[in-house]
Amino acid sequence: MAGNLFGKLFTLTTFGESHGVAIGGIIDGCPSNIEIDFEFIQNELDRRKPGQSTIVSQRKESDKVIFLSGIFEGKTTGTPIGFVINNENQKSKDYEHLKDVYRPSHADYTYQQKYGIRDYNGGGRSSARETTCRIVAGAIAKLILKRSGITINAYVSQVGHIQVLKNYLELNLNEIETTEIRCPELETAQKMIDLIKSIKKEGDTIGGCVSAVIKGVPAGLGEPVFDKLNAELGKAMLSINAAKGFEIGSGFNSTKYKGSELNDIFINENNKKFFN
Amino acid sequence: MAGNLFGKLFTLTTFGESHGVAIGGIIDGCPSNIEIDFEFIQNELDRRKPGQSTIVSQRKESDKVIFLSGIFEGKTTGTPIGFVINNENQKSKDYEHLKDVYRPSHADYTYQQKYGIRDYNGGGRSSARETTCRIVAGAIAKLILKRSGITINAYVSQVGHIQVLKNYLELNLNEIETTEIRCPELETAQKMIDLIKSIKKEGDTIGGCVSAVIKGVPAGLGEPVFDKLNAELGKAMLSINAAKGFEIGSGFNSTKYKGSELNDIFINENNKKFFN
Amino acid sequence: MAGNLFGKLFTLTTFGESHGVAIGGIIDGCPSNIEIDFEFIQNELDRRKPGQSTIVSQRKESDKVIFLSGIFEGKTTGTPIGFVINNENQKSKDYEHLKDVYRPSHADYTYQQKYGIRDYNGGGRSSARETTCRIVAGAIAKLILKRSGITINAYVSQVGHIQVLKNYLELNLNEIETTEIRCPELETAQKMIDLIKSIKKEGDTIGGCVSAVIKGVPAGLGEPVFDKLNAELGKAMLSINAAKGFEIGSGFNSTKYKGSELNDIFINENNKKFFN
Amino acid sequence: MAGNLFGKLFTLTTFGESHGVAIGGIIDGCPSNIEIDFEFIQNELDRRKPGQSTIVSQRKESDKVIFLSGIFEGKTTGTPIGFVINNENQKSKDYEHLKDVYRPSHADYTYQQKYGIRDYNGGGRSSARETTCRIVAGAIAKLILKRSGITINAYVSQVGHIQVLKNYLELNLNEIETTEIRCPELETAQKMIDLIKSIKKEGDTIGGCVSAVIKGVPAGLGEPVFDKLNAELGKAMLSINAAKGFEIGSGFNSTKYKGSELNDIFINENNKKFFN
Repeated sequence: MAGNLFGKLFTLTTFGESHGVAIGGIIDGCPSNIEIDFEFIQNELDRRKPGQSTIVSQRKESDKVIFLSGIFEGKTTGTPIGFVINNENQKSKDYEHLKDVYRPSHADYTYQQKYGIRDYNGGGRSSARETTCRIVAGAIAKLILKRSGITINAYVSQVGHIQVLKNYLELNLNEIETTEIRCPELETAQKMIDLIKSIKKEGDTIGGCVSAVIKGVPAGLGEPVFDKLNAELGKAMLSINAAKGFEIGSGFNSTKYKGSELNDIFINENNKKFFN
Repeated sequence: MAGNLFGKLFTLTTFGESHGVAIGGIIDGCPSNIEIDFEFIQNELDRRKPGQSTIVSQRKESDKVIFLSGIFEGKTTGTPIGFVINNENQKSKDYEHLKDVYRPSHADYTYQQKYGIRDYNGGGRSSARETTCRIVAGAIAKLILKRSGITINAYVSQVGHIQVLKNYLELNLNEIETTEIRCPELETAQKMIDLIKSIKKEGDTIGGCVSAVIKGVPAGLGEPVFDKLNAELGKAMLSINAAKGFEIGSGFNSTKYKGSELNDIFINENNKKFFN
Repeated sequence: MAGNLFGKLFTLTTFGESHGVAIGGIIDGCPSNIEIDFEFIQNELDRRKPGQSTIVSQRKESDKVIFLSGIFEGKTTGTPIGFVINNENQKSKDYEHLKDVYRPSHADYTYQQKYGIRDYNGGGRSSARETTCRIVAGAIAKLILKRSGITINAYVSQVGHIQVLKNYLELNLNEIETTEIRCPELETAQKMIDLIKSIKKEGDTIGGCVSAVIKGVPAGLGEPVFDKLNAELGKAMLSINAAKGFEIGSGFNSTKYKGSELNDIFINENNKKFFN
Repeated sequence: MAGNLFGKLFTLTTFGESHGVAIGGIIDGCPSNIEIDFEFIQNELDRRKPGQSTIVSQRKESDKVIFLSGIFEGKTTGTPIGFVINNENQKSKDYEHLKDVYRPSHADYTYQQKYGIRDYNGGGRSSARETTCRIVAGAIAKLILKRSGITINAYVSQVGHIQVLKNYLELNLNEIETTEIRCPELETAQKMIDLIKSIKKEGDTIGGCVSAVIKGVPAGLGEPVFDKLNAELGKAMLSINAAKGFEIGSGFNSTKYKGSELNDIFINENNKKFFN
């Protein structure tokens, strides 16, 4: 059952191993007449790229996306958008010592068991490099959503035990990009960076949380029952390598409140509650 | 895009409003020659049923499932399994006072906005009664999984601020059913029940967490990239009414540990680590 | 991979064996606020029903559809439409002599090989009775299409060697229902009926063709490449029991013409060719 | 709803316009450990290529497929197989005169109506060049099927009014490739070639039929009801540009026979009928 396709109306199918010739994908179902802002897409890719700062992996790839179809004179035509990103770092030799061992917490063993064969170069298909293709499709999706006034902003809200203190409503989301770690609470950002640097020195790593703020969503988005927006977002996030949890709204914290404290109050345009 | 179907090889499509004639579904892709334990399925349904104890909603429904196809002389035939559960509680009048109002934290307003029409009886399609059909399919899935030695046990692990203290490995999962609230840590169970009763007296409600323990899963289950097992489980759980979060493994707690502390160590059959 | 679901935006999933308790289905993705003309739907079902005339199978079923969900005060609500049609003819004994034999040209042997088990009553799932559920969904689809001015009319155009002589444009499609065999060319219809009656006397059967005329279709309906309208219609028709061929437009006959003779000329609203 | 994906377990998604940078696709769900015979795949592509003989279009493309992923040391790994075929013939100027006109019997007008924008170069997405990607996937599918003893052979069985006279069982399918037109009845092949040449001189074209012989198919292949093998094959064939009809088995011809003459007789391994 495959598994390399996401979405129903706007679908992304991806391919590519981290150390193969190239990675890439096909976006099918993109509306026509969307103006493609190539600079924005490349900028989104650059934000993901390793090797940008001292706190992340130093592996270097230019991650330049090449569009092969579906765009004519700067606009989408409604036909599938094929794209590739060439891998510059294809030296299989680097990984030959992994040929006969399985790295813990990697998918090496799982792939071997599932497929009876394993491409041992750099994690192959299970490498986080795979998310690069999601960014291409995500950037185009953002261009479409922008036309409907929907915005999406994400920031690092926790690293180890260090958490952003302010509620997302109090944060200045425009400051996300001002810190190396993309956390808009500047003092907290510095603490996170310091923590990562010290853990890096030990040759270790540390996890964290990312929070996303989505605004302008119309009532009724998503589908009932199995394809609720909550469920689809959860699936998307949990399909990212190493993601172990997903919360929406008040999330796990909501267990601590009574129903009466958690009700979503209807608020009309003049910001008055109209039903409680 | 519909949204009332779940799964790919073993699919469940459901229908039905909480106060319509009946709810039901179709299971397509169920393997043939599975012996159907009707008593087990009905028992699973009975476990969900409201009105069983003093701590839950008192609404009464017998929730008797009627199979219409796909089973011949007690075994599945490989053809779709159609089933219905008649609604006994169809008094629309009970809800007529809701005709012109939207209840907060219910999907009333959302359905109205999405579909331009609303069946105001008892929550219609968005009622938690919809999960009844999932139980029928889930019970049959359990019968299939049992043949491969896969077991699934779930218990209430938190209510309000009261949490189960023991790790799932230390709990006796056979005791789940011995308490009204299905929590195998008996003292904690009693505290949870007391808390619910006291909050119920105030006319209020309280949330909680459910933990599931799945054993016997072979390496390689799930599909790569977008359809990872984590992602599919997350989607399934987050599609349940009022579910606001999902964790797998060490979940959000894992942010507090270093990579070196979180590695999944390979353990061989004699319980020795063989690679670290 | 199941196989009991058809469609993408408007999907039909069906269940039911010919001699089980009931057959039925779920329509998911039906737009909301469609007025349901129950009489029209039942009338469409009655048109399919065996036992209506001397030239068809005499098996009797009332084929009364019961809607269980998705319709509120005569209008669709956007939620899935569940429906059942009870089987009145469930006498398994009638078929017990088939328990140990496979009928040629039936799917008995195929089902046995595929599923390792076989419901030998009346063809089980592979009975043509399965098409009854398609008619329910088809009738609702017609109600939706009617709102966009799309009409569909089908008639018997061939029985054995007897063919309708006139082109579909010259036929009066309003006369389809006036003959027992639903052929609008009245003299030809009589010949077809006579042929069937004589072959029936011999204890034999004879095949034929059905032609459909679809009007009012907007340019661009269908999807490119694999899901072309031609392809989807072809799949739908070829999935009907005993259908062995499908043609669209000039069909196989077009092999006899040159490209210059077959070009689809653009015709503008005043019926003038504007490009050739 | 997209439309550029075919298949369920073994899926092909394609992209690419005839005069864009490249065409290509992703095969998802290909089993692992399939030995890839690159020469065979390229040979299949070469068979499709225009410009090979005097009787077809003279447009030249080398149609060299480049695999980007999913194959490791000559074997499939179970991960998606991405591939591209560069377009060598990208001179948009060749088609600039078509910018403001719609060619009859082409999809120009349809695309304009559907998408509100049109890539006027060489037919864009609706060019028959799109089938090139199907050949890559088809060739790999053939390699998989070969392991189960399933063979597929197709030949030209009709051009204009000239038809192959022999039944497929009497033909030597090994001779298909010996004629320029791929018809194994050599005298008929010559007549077809002569007809095409004479029609080509007039600046015109002529249609025809292709017959395929599939051997070694196990009983039970395909899925019941909507996804019958007949239906899936029909959809696939009817999704090819300019295909207007599809028959299986005795096809339309079967209308001329009585049921008793058309029964599929069971034949056992010693070639004796065992049930009639």
